[in-house]
This record gives sequence, C-alpha cells and structure tokens, in this order.
Amino acid sequence: MRLARVHTPDGPRSVVQDGDRWSVIKDLFADPVTRTGETYPVDSTALHAPTEPRVVLGMAHNSGPADRELPPQAFMKSARTTVGPGDPIHIDSRFGQVVVEGELAVVIGRTSRNLAPGDVPGAILGWTIGNDVTAVEQIPLDEKMTQSKNGNGFTPIGPWIETDLDPADLAIEVSVGGDVAARSTTAHLAWDIAEQLVYLTSFLTLGPGDIVLTGSPWTAAPVVPGDVASITIAGLGTLTNPVVSWPAGPTRVRGSRSQGVARLSTQIMM
Amino acid sequence: MRLARVHTPDGPRSVVQDGDRWSVIKDLFADPVTRTGETYPVDSTALHAPTEPRVVLGMAHNSGPADRELPPQAFMKSARTTVGPGDPIHIDSRFGQVVVEGELAVVIGRTSRNLAPGDVPGAILGWTIGNDVTAVEQIPLDEKMTQSKNGNGFTPIGPWIETDLDPADLAIEVSVGGDVAARSTTAHLAWDIAEQLVYLTSFLTLGPGDIVLTGSPWTAAPVVPGDVASITIAGLGTLTNPVVSWPAGPTRVRGSRSQGVARLSTQIMM
Repeated sequence: MRLARVHTPDGPRSVVQDGDRWSVIKDLFADPVTRTGETYPVDSTALHAPTEPRVVLGMAHNSGPADRELPPQAFMKSARTTVGPGDPIHIDSRFGQVVVEGELAVVIGRTSRNLAPGDVPGAILGWTIGNDVTAVEQIPLDEKMTQSKNGNGFTPIGPWIETDLDPADLAIEVSVGGDVAARSTTAHLAWDIAEQLVYLTSFLTLGPGDIVLTGSPWTAAPVVPGDVASITIAGLGTLTNPVVSWPAGPTRVRGSRSQGVARLSTQIMM
Repeated sequence: MRLARVHTPDGPRSVVQDGDRWSVIKDLFADPVTRTGETYPVDSTALHAPTEPRVVLGMAHNSGPADRELPPQAFMKSARTTVGPGDPIHIDSRFGQVVVEGELAVVIGRTSRNLAPGDVPGAILGWTIGNDVTAVEQIPLDEKMTQSKNGNGFTPIGPWIETDLDPADLAIEVSVGGDVAARSTTAHLAWDIAEQLVYLTSFLTLGPGDIVLTGSPWTAAPVVPGDVASITIAGLGTLTNPVVSWPAGPTRVRGSRSQGVARLSTQIMM
C-alpha cells in the first residue's frame, strides 16, 4: 500500500494510491484505511511531507560493522525542519559546509514504548525516504548536534510511504545535480531497524507519524546553493529537493551593545 | 494577562483570566485576544499544559558566571514529554537517579529566526514554569542527552502563561514532598533570555507555542517514585507534579535471540 499526503484546495489530505488516482482517507493510521470517495490524479497532484511528526530522531554513527563497537546513540531534530518533496533546503553560509544524507526513514504507526524485537513490525506504519541534512562543520563545535541539524528544510521526507517493504538490503543512491554522489545499501547500517526501535523505545515514547532516520551508511554528499539533491531508495522512489541560500539579510546579531551577544556572535560566525 | 489551557467537555481550550473566570479565546497567539463568550470558573477548572509545542529546547550549562566561559549550547527534548500541572512524571528505575529542575520557560509567540536582541520581546508570548526532568546517570553514557531527557512526563509546564513579567531576577523554589530542596533566582543564569533567543534563532526557527527551558541555576533536586515535586517562580505560581514508577513490567528487551539487542539491553540496564 502506498500512502501520501497531497495538496488539495481544502488543505493537505492523507491519501492511498489506487492505480492512477490518490484516494483521500479519513485517518492515515487506521487499519484498514477508510476512503472518503474524494480522489486526485497521481500524475498531477503536488505532494506534501507524508506525515507531520511530533518527534524526529536520527541514529548517530550507524555505518558498518565497526560502529557496532560504539554504543547506539540518537539525536533529535526539530519537527519544524521536516519538509516535503520539492521543498527547499536552506543553507546559511555562516555555518559552513552542508551535506545531504540519504537515509531510510521509519514512519511510526502507533504509540510505542519498550518494544521487544517481535513488537517492532506492528509499531511501524511504513517506510519513506529521509534526507538528514547536516551542517557538518558545526558538529565539532556542538557535540549535541543542535547547531548542525536544525536549519530550515533540513529534514526532507517523502515522496510517500510504502507499507510493504523489507528494509534489510535496500539500495540507496544520492545524486547532486544529476550526478551520482554516493551509492550504498541499508545492509551497511550498523544497527538494524528492530535494534534501533528497541533501543529508542527503551527510554522514550514514539507515536503515530514520528520519524526515525535510520542512519547514513556512507550516503552523504556536499551541497551548495543552486544544487538539486535527489535520493533514490529501491522500492521507495526518489526524493528531490533544491538547495537555496538562507535569505539571512544583514547579520543582525552583530553590533549588539551586549558583550555576551557579541561573544555569541563571534562564535556562530565561525 | 494570564493565559492558560483548560479542560472542557469539548476538549482543551485556550483561555484568558478575567477575575474569577477563565474566558475562552479563539487563538492563543492573536494580539489582541478574541473572547468567544464561553467561560469557566478559575477555582474548579482543570488545567492542561498551557501550550502544545512542536519544539522544546533546553539550555545546557547555564548556571552562574563561570558557564559564560563555555560556548552556549542547547539540547532538544521530545515534544511528547510535555505534560501539564498534576500530570505524573514517570521514572523508569533501569535508568538510575532522576532529578527535577525548576526553570523559567519562555513561550514563543511567533515564527522567529535570526532575532536581534531588540526583536526578542516581540517574539515572546509569555512565561511559564518548566520542569526539565533529567535521568542524570544517563548523561555520561550519552552526551547528546537523548537518553536522559525524554522519559514520559519529563517536561511538565504550567500552570499558566504570564505575558507581563520581567525575567531578570525571579525567585525560584523547588520543593519535594513539601520540603524546600533548592532556592535560586533567574539572575544566576549564565546567559540571559535575549542572549539565549539570539543564539537559538541564529541556527533554527522557533514558532508559536514552542518552549525554551532557560536553564537550571542550581535548582535541581533528586526525586523517587511517591514524591511530589513543586516548583514556584515569583509571579508565575506553582507547578506541581507527582512522581510515579514507569509501569515497565517485565523488561522485554532481555532474552532476545539477537546478539545486538542483548548488547543494547546490557547497556541500557546500566
């Protein structure tokens, strides 16, 4: 089943694909879904981010067997960073180099805490593509990664949700400006999906629509304003987003009378 | 002006206090507010958390002049951790000692990015009390603080929002079981409110209803299940929450056949 959220004259609506039509459904998280009868053409209907998460988590250092020697670790991204297909990724040049990271994203289907491995499939609504955009030069300055992960448009997700997919070995391809910049597979993740959700729900509660970015198995690529970044995952299609300059205008944090703010300003100006 | 969110037969409603009545308003973030005419008695109406934030940020190491020598730093908490007055803080004993932290909380009033110091007052809807509950023994295991900050009920906020308050030197008192456990003032914060919001909005966008926990100026106190934690801030009243055991039941992460999960299990069991 393919689920999405489409633009309609009445606002965004959750839909399920029926051939060449998107059929509006009452509740993205209901099983089975209930169609309202309203439909839109698949070919010509704009897509929003497929969910509006309250929580967006990313798995840190999650590439290859060596990362299993480190304890699992996660970081949180602002839900306000999530955008949909075609929406811009804003780069603020003050923060240095930015990379896109192509990742398989889990869409949570129900309230989930203390999951056992056998509970994990029932907790997942489906799968989408996530782009964990990161201002990499900020990471050494802020190990909590709050400064590096939360620019505007820093978490594109989409284009839709597939509910039936085996996540174990899905090919991932990252392209910038039409050129392939990275190729990998989810088989290179250090911690598999069940392990990640058992870990995360051991200490926090996830709920419907939340997103887990499962890690970047060597799928990062640098981008600059003017680029277009595309991530393709086998079975999930392609998520494409333009990269634009953050219109910061004059840097208003400069020139403050406050010494503290001036010091902050120096730091964030790199 | 005092704003809150009250329980009604039709669900939570935002309100403004008019004497001994809560008057329902159409939009918490409108200026001026528009009353619908529906009212509830202040004395006998249950309160919810005064906002439903999409983003909850906390300032790290923000106590006293010495912390100004460190760069400012923030961490993100799950929006699902926010609860209201009287709601329980759940402690999972597997994660060790838990503390409550009494903090002045900023409630953001409008979409805010790249604030200059002079923009800050206009970006703030008002002030409430925040309790930044923390499983402190997890911090050394996870410097990103994702494991330590996100238990159920780990961010009580309330009881209401005051829009007219000078945040510079507000007395904070933390009580556990009726005994005063900590006394301080917001004057002991290393970074003042304007500096914090200039810093945070330099790299991310805040929006209406978001919460910034401004830091714990030596206002932490250990708690155990059975305790009742109260935080009083001058001009803001008292936020009281019971502390209960997380009903984890048998630890289902144990006994997995997966070596990876078993390893995770060992780690999170401390």
